[in-house]
Amino acid sequence: MDAAEFRRRGKEMVDYVADYLEKIEERPVYPDLEPGYLRDLIPTEAPCEPESFEDLMQDVERVIMPGITHWHSPNFFAYFPAASSYPAMLADMLCGAIGCIGFSWAASPACTELETVMLDWLGKMLQLPECFIAGTHGHGGGVIQSTASEATLMSLLAARCKAVRRVQAVESERSESDVLSKLVAYTSDQAHSSVERAALIGAVMMRKVPTDEHFAVREEMLKKMVEEDKAAGLIPFYFCATLGTTPSCAFDHITKLGPLCESTENMWMHIDAAYAGSAFICPEFRPLLNGIEYADSFNFNPHKWLLINFDCSTMWVKKRTDIIGHWQIPLGRRFRSLKMWFVFRLYGLKGLQAHIRKQVALAKEFESLVQADNRFEICAEVILGLVCFRLKGSNELNQNLLKRITKSREIHLVPCQLSGRFVLRFAICARTTESRHIQRAWRHITQLAFELLQEQSESNKNKKILSLICVKSFLISSIWCLITKSCFSPEFYYAS
Amino acid sequence: MDAAEFRRRGKEMVDYVADYLEKIEERPVYPDLEPGYLRDLIPTEAPCEPESFEDLMQDVERVIMPGITHWHSPNFFAYFPAASSYPAMLADMLCGAIGCIGFSWAASPACTELETVMLDWLGKMLQLPECFIAGTHGHGGGVIQSTASEATLMSLLAARCKAVRRVQAVESERSESDVLSKLVAYTSDQAHSSVERAALIGAVMMRKVPTDEHFAVREEMLKKMVEEDKAAGLIPFYFCATLGTTPSCAFDHITKLGPLCESTENMWMHIDAAYAGSAFICPEFRPLLNGIEYADSFNFNPHKWLLINFDCSTMWVKKRTDIIGHWQIPLGRRFRSLKMWFVFRLYGLKGLQAHIRKQVALAKEFESLVQADNRFEICAEVILGLVCFRLKGSNELNQNLLKRITKSREIHLVPCQLSGRFVLRFAICARTTESRHIQRAWRHITQLAFELLQEQSESNKNKKILSLICVKSFLISSIWCLITKSCFSPEFYYAS
Repeated sequence: MDAAEFRRRGKEMVDYVADYLEKIEERPVYPDLEPGYLRDLIPTEAPCEPESFEDLMQDVERVIMPGITHWHSPNFFAYFPAASSYPAMLADMLCGAIGCIGFSWAASPACTELETVMLDWLGKMLQLPECFIAGTHGHGGGVIQSTASEATLMSLLAARCKAVRRVQAVESERSESDVLSKLVAYTSDQAHSSVERAALIGAVMMRKVPTDEHFAVREEMLKKMVEEDKAAGLIPFYFCATLGTTPSCAFDHITKLGPLCESTENMWMHIDAAYAGSAFICPEFRPLLNGIEYADSFNFNPHKWLLINFDCSTMWVKKRTDIIGHWQIPLGRRFRSLKMWFVFRLYGLKGLQAHIRKQVALAKEFESLVQADNRFEICAEVILGLVCFRLKGSNELNQNLLKRITKSREIHLVPCQLSGRFVLRFAICARTTESRHIQRAWRHITQLAFELLQEQSESNKNKKILSLICVKSFLISSIWCLITKSCFSPEFYYAS
Repeated sequence: MDAAEFRRRGKEMVDYVADYLEKIEERPVYPDLEPGYLRDLIPTEAPCEPESFEDLMQDVERVIMPGITHWHSPNFFAYFPAASSYPAMLADMLCGAIGCIGFSWAASPACTELETVMLDWLGKMLQLPECFIAGTHGHGGGVIQSTASEATLMSLLAARCKAVRRVQAVESERSESDVLSKLVAYTSDQAHSSVERAALIGAVMMRKVPTDEHFAVREEMLKKMVEEDKAAGLIPFYFCATLGTTPSCAFDHITKLGPLCESTENMWMHIDAAYAGSAFICPEFRPLLNGIEYADSFNFNPHKWLLINFDCSTMWVKKRTDIIGHWQIPLGRRFRSLKMWFVFRLYGLKGLQAHIRKQVALAKEFESLVQADNRFEICAEVILGLVCFRLKGSNELNQNLLKRITKSREIHLVPCQLSGRFVLRFAICARTTESRHIQRAWRHITQLAFELLQEQSESNKNKKILSLICVKSFLISSIWCLITKSCFSPEFYYAS
């Protein structure tokens, strides 16, 4: 394909993309197929000769689209949002064309430099303390990671390195492997699985801190564990706080946890605000980030909620020297700051704030609908764009409700566990979700719930009748037993 | 920006991209600016109100382009190629629009399934042993990683986990931290820095195996180290072989190293063929991969040399169960297999082979030019698309030559160290590099070399004259000394 054909096909693709996103509501949000569906639809080997672009695009509709979970459908309420915006897509096109691999300054100075400045721009939008801003003289600064998992791992590795050095500075005879075997990290029992995984990779212990009734870590809980561990000869070195947990968007109490970490031999505090972080650009949500001044590192995902397409996970550290050699796992990197630049300039701070506020308002709207229906209950405080709710009743009942929702393919949700209860998560995801989608989703959920409850009540009636029959037959057989005096025969027990 | 504006701006961007790539030769390949250039060119904060697309695109030319190292210029011969093709760019546009986060099958079945099948397609192109192909029943299979660094880390972690389990199965009383402290991994002294870094992250020892005169690891070298380490109570568990090293594209002897690993308590053998791997789709280069049957895992970067834009690093394992829980560091992932599908179908295997062969031929052409000039020497066998060469003479001479090349900004090269010698690396990189670019690059290099050698010879002449003057003055002063008998006074020595 030469440049001339790319001009033609590229413009066709622009239209395909615009069509796809404009008409996405017409597609079922969740696919209806069995694992392994795709293998039978395409050849077992790559073609030897080139094929035509038309054939390929036909196969996009035939093979790919039926297997897509449409994350940008306004009927998608699962997981957390995956950011998507036209400005970010335009930037990605430019990024692909420049195609530099930014592993060093010389490999493309603009790539390194724009990233540093964009992280400063974003840091200022969040009102991060000055120490996190690179500026022209700062000791801190930001870097783009692929995902929050990577940022967590990087912070844990930096903390591990620092802890080993600190211990060995005092006890020079201690071997590195001895120190490593005593290091202990902490995180919430609500934290994302990637936090535990970072500790596995880094070969250090990690302990889960139990949370309070709001699913948040409190100072006294962490303090107790740290003291126990120190008494047992362990070395607490790292705490990963979460602002906006995955299950319920809970917030750990960092204003209290921060000072505790500081007084515990400068235990490294990393803050994972993967989802919630984007909201901190709004002054009304910024107090949720209070305590950030105690953190050694902080991360959130603009690729979740700040209209910058995946992947763009932004991480700041207080002291750049702490993570030299640990900036990232992959050496190569795309020119991802272009997406930030395009989105920030084409939306402006106000446009981004409007996006966050609109989505929080939609979540509040959904919360009101749930609250107005006394068959349902809200399971966690609705602070941002996530509503955790359930039918009053058993876990099984709620599992059945979710099964019906999934099967209907009109909207898509995923569940979570909160204090052993099966809960439905309703996250405002797509940029194009409007009030009418919320209202329709709620009508759909209540309709399915109505059917489920009715069937259950039918079945309960039947069960009652059945149990009446059982009691009756038990009585008859008991009487018969008394008569025949074979009441304790094994056969009786088997039969009843 | 709504869909209508995206249609317009998207098409403008397609033209911008095509223009950029068609006229890339007109731009200096390497930027001429000082670190920190960008910060002064843009505001210190994000705008509050949205800006216009026109202003943004003007700033792309004003701010970004002057700071780009143009990796896709046909005059770029640095590092290794970064793949780029129009079909991959089209696929990336589609990937951005679908914007699914493929962390599980349900999150987008097509994303998981196309990846598995594309890795099978590519595995078959490389004639990987059946055990690496997922097929419908296989135990092995492939996965896309972001970079080779990540693949190496994943394989090392899987090997670490397996080794700990293996030792503890026999000696159940041994603690995990004790086993970890005894594990030792190996790699070539020519291996990429990311291999050593993987060991640092995984908190295990790593030893560098010295290479032979062709910069390759031989069986006897590894064997000796393994035996020494075992005798010292260590536990060899992992060897990372390199096919196509970064400095000189050397190949470790895996046909012999493989059986050695197998007989050393099944030491995990990972093969890193980041650059060279793409060439194995050509039957004439496939013998370089012989011995793959001994590997536990294998990785290469189609994003280097197989026309699939960064990032797309493909990794295969013999037993999927070995890396369950270790498939990757980031949990989220883009729909990267779309790029593979587009490129494989729109080029066909033959088109891809033609690309590899053309670039190897260009390297051979450059090699001939170097060989025909007796001022220069070839420093490593030219097997694929990389030529290591230098001016016969000192390291300083070659450093000066490279400085002049870099300063001229007509072509771009980077150096390497081979056995302590400063060597210039000439890698065929851009898809659009043709014979005329090779010829012109060589003329440019020889012209700069001519100037340098001439200046040096001038300076040598001057030095000779100077030294004659010195000798003369020494003689005079010596005579004078003899006369004055102050020959051994300290002043004399200081003066001479």
